[in-house]
Amino acid sequence: MHHVVIVGAGFGGLAAAQELAGAAVRITIIDQRNHHLFQPLLYQVATAALATSEIAWPIRFLVRKRREVTTLLGVVNGVDAQNRTVLLQDGAVVSFDTLILATGARHAYFGHDEWEPFAPGLKTLEDATSIRRRVLLSLERAERESDPVRRAALLTYVIVGGGPTGVEMAGAIVELVYQNLVGEFRRIDTRQARVLLIEAGPRILPSFAPDLSAYAHRALERLGVEVQVGSAVTSCNSSGVVAGDRSIAADVILWAAGVRASPAAAWLGAPADNAGRVKVAADLSVPGNADIFVLGDTATINVWRGKPAPGIAPAAKQQGVHVARTIKRRLAGDSQPRAFRYMHAGDLATIGKRSAVIDFGWCKLRGWIAWWVWGMAHIYFLIGLRNRLAVALSWLWIYMTGSRSACLITQVDHNKRTN
Amino acid sequence: MHHVVIVGAGFGGLAAAQELAGAAVRITIIDQRNHHLFQPLLYQVATAALATSEIAWPIRFLVRKRREVTTLLGVVNGVDAQNRTVLLQDGAVVSFDTLILATGARHAYFGHDEWEPFAPGLKTLEDATSIRRRVLLSLERAERESDPVRRAALLTYVIVGGGPTGVEMAGAIVELVYQNLVGEFRRIDTRQARVLLIEAGPRILPSFAPDLSAYAHRALERLGVEVQVGSAVTSCNSSGVVAGDRSIAADVILWAAGVRASPAAAWLGAPADNAGRVKVAADLSVPGNADIFVLGDTATINVWRGKPAPGIAPAAKQQGVHVARTIKRRLAGDSQPRAFRYMHAGDLATIGKRSAVIDFGWCKLRGWIAWWVWGMAHIYFLIGLRNRLAVALSWLWIYMTGSRSACLITQVDHNKRTN
Repeated sequence: MHHVVIVGAGFGGLAAAQELAGAAVRITIIDQRNHHLFQPLLYQVATAALATSEIAWPIRFLVRKRREVTTLLGVVNGVDAQNRTVLLQDGAVVSFDTLILATGARHAYFGHDEWEPFAPGLKTLEDATSIRRRVLLSLERAERESDPVRRAALLTYVIVGGGPTGVEMAGAIVELVYQNLVGEFRRIDTRQARVLLIEAGPRILPSFAPDLSAYAHRALERLGVEVQVGSAVTSCNSSGVVAGDRSIAADVILWAAGVRASPAAAWLGAPADNAGRVKVAADLSVPGNADIFVLGDTATINVWRGKPAPGIAPAAKQQGVHVARTIKRRLAGDSQPRAFRYMHAGDLATIGKRSAVIDFGWCKLRGWIAWWVWGMAHIYFLIGLRNRLAVALSWLWIYMTGSRSACLITQVDHNKRTN
Repeated sequence: MHHVVIVGAGFGGLAAAQELAGAAVRITIIDQRNHHLFQPLLYQVATAALATSEIAWPIRFLVRKRREVTTLLGVVNGVDAQNRTVLLQDGAVVSFDTLILATGARHAYFGHDEWEPFAPGLKTLEDATSIRRRVLLSLERAERESDPVRRAALLTYVIVGGGPTGVEMAGAIVELVYQNLVGEFRRIDTRQARVLLIEAGPRILPSFAPDLSAYAHRALERLGVEVQVGSAVTSCNSSGVVAGDRSIAADVILWAAGVRASPAAAWLGAPADNAGRVKVAADLSVPGNADIFVLGDTATINVWRGKPAPGIAPAAKQQGVHVARTIKRRLAGDSQPRAFRYMHAGDLATIGKRSAVIDFGWCKLRGWIAWWVWGMAHIYFLIGLRNRLAVALSWLWIYMTGSRSACLITQVDHNKRTN
């Protein structure tokens, strides 16, 4: 039977597997994690609002009823296109008839990988619990610090990058320290913390309409965030950041400024763009190799307003569905390639827990009504009733009581700073 | 104002802080964790039934309304009794008028600390997520293993120690592999896994009445656990355990066989028993130092049927309350020491999710009714409505759907085995 191997069970890979239900194929899903992660809410794990298990599901649980789907936990580190095999780190080899690479992206530092220990990014559950640990630990250390200069640095949070992730992190952190944790400390007043959002471009949320950017800017400032646009970060180290001509002493720096695709292009020897994304053909196959598809954050293709599809869940899902349909058509004897068309549903970003901006293109929403649309949409897109109930309970609780349930400092910090 | 320093915010330390509410004291709580942990349900985190945040609360959140209580995150590593100071690892010094040491215990290996990497114990949230990781990872590896001998070892789970923790772990793991995960794997049948519970003494649950031990033994066997009593473990390594005259190849070994008190006795230069517990006076003070109290798993005193109070939450709580009342009486001018009296409420242990044994002394319960009493009691003792709702939802969900919500493999395993 035709064997489809899907590497990566993010939004794209999983959508492909789901769309292939009922087709005359057997499927192997390979992922280096045992879980699918709902990344749009990851910042809420990082800021202690949600538990890890509320936004992650074991991959094999999600496909348990599909007897033709086998799930393997493993790290892929190569593809032999000629022999149609995927190579795993531990030496195992998996052969395929059709291969779908949906291996996503990691955060990137524009050639400054040495910044990573000081400015972690947010892509995995471990990233989220590690950021949660840093944020909460800085407050604990400030409570025990007598030197006012050190204490001020401990209470300064810098978020680099003004896209949706940066905006959402800044809003969540400022609410955490200005609202949720007020009254829990005795020697410090958490309301004296500073939260800075630094964006290199001329405005935050550059993918949104300018008036929504301006609204988000004002809304963040109302919450207490210091928003600084037009200033690129030129240094990150253990004492803080240099942004534009300003040097900011900060203990916690969070990186939301850039991503780099997984090394699928190198596995394939395929041409890639600056961010490492494979330049795929119109039908999302790899040029010169019709049986290998690349999608999601690992691929790039100009399909939307003359630009690449954005690196968001709906784009990856649509691509997964498109590839699955291509495979089904081929099995039915129709090998005519069809171009992927991207339908942009809109851009969403929350600003704290009472406001959001949504740009549907034909309609713009902002304020509390946008927050409710955002909240409903995200609960809708969660998988399964149980997690919908759990997330709704968590949000309701924070709304009603102002206290977050997951303020836990756990695990050692592997990127431990030197100071 | 009289300054009470409480080291350790477990059940004992927290009970002391609560009982001191309204007294003319200021209180400093020092803990090396930022959270209080509901240890009786920790095995459910280890077996993927509950999320970490459902059984842990930030200490400073629990005492946020008590303006006279300061919470410090720090590692104590000494006490200067003469100068009445507590010494922290980072060099800080905290002075006290009265000191309460409630620093608990860690699991212990009877002089075989070299077993720890192969047979982790269960005391902290990290222990629990690390055990969860090992159990789930062994199944993932078995799914990819072609050698039947290796595969069998990957699917063998050995729990060492037949007390309540061992019994509860064994019951939870056997339900996980025999019920909850059935149908999620394609190459292995998780029902072929073996779960062994090994106890050195003549019967499991030795603190219970013999007929309840016998019932628990049969109930575990009905679930599929191989129970082996009267066989001491003489070796643990990367290939398995040797128990009595049997060598068992096993990838996952869990330790529930013994504890050792935190080093409070060494800090104080006080006499201790074999498990390192300080031999305290009848009023729980340290002999020769009336202003220092030791309680919970860190102390030992023969107060119950001629034996030490058991290492369970109610004993620690009662001791915390007793010490707090002693302090209040002293502040009121009454320095006559009063002996701590332990009230034993009973022994409880669950066997999977449909049965339990409860020994109240005057009354014994077993089967599903005992499970319900156990479940209600544990939800009652959780702190706050939010966590009660969350745990009740988690249990209800597992009951109704048979699927556990927290089957996540996260974090690196720091005790990584060599094979």
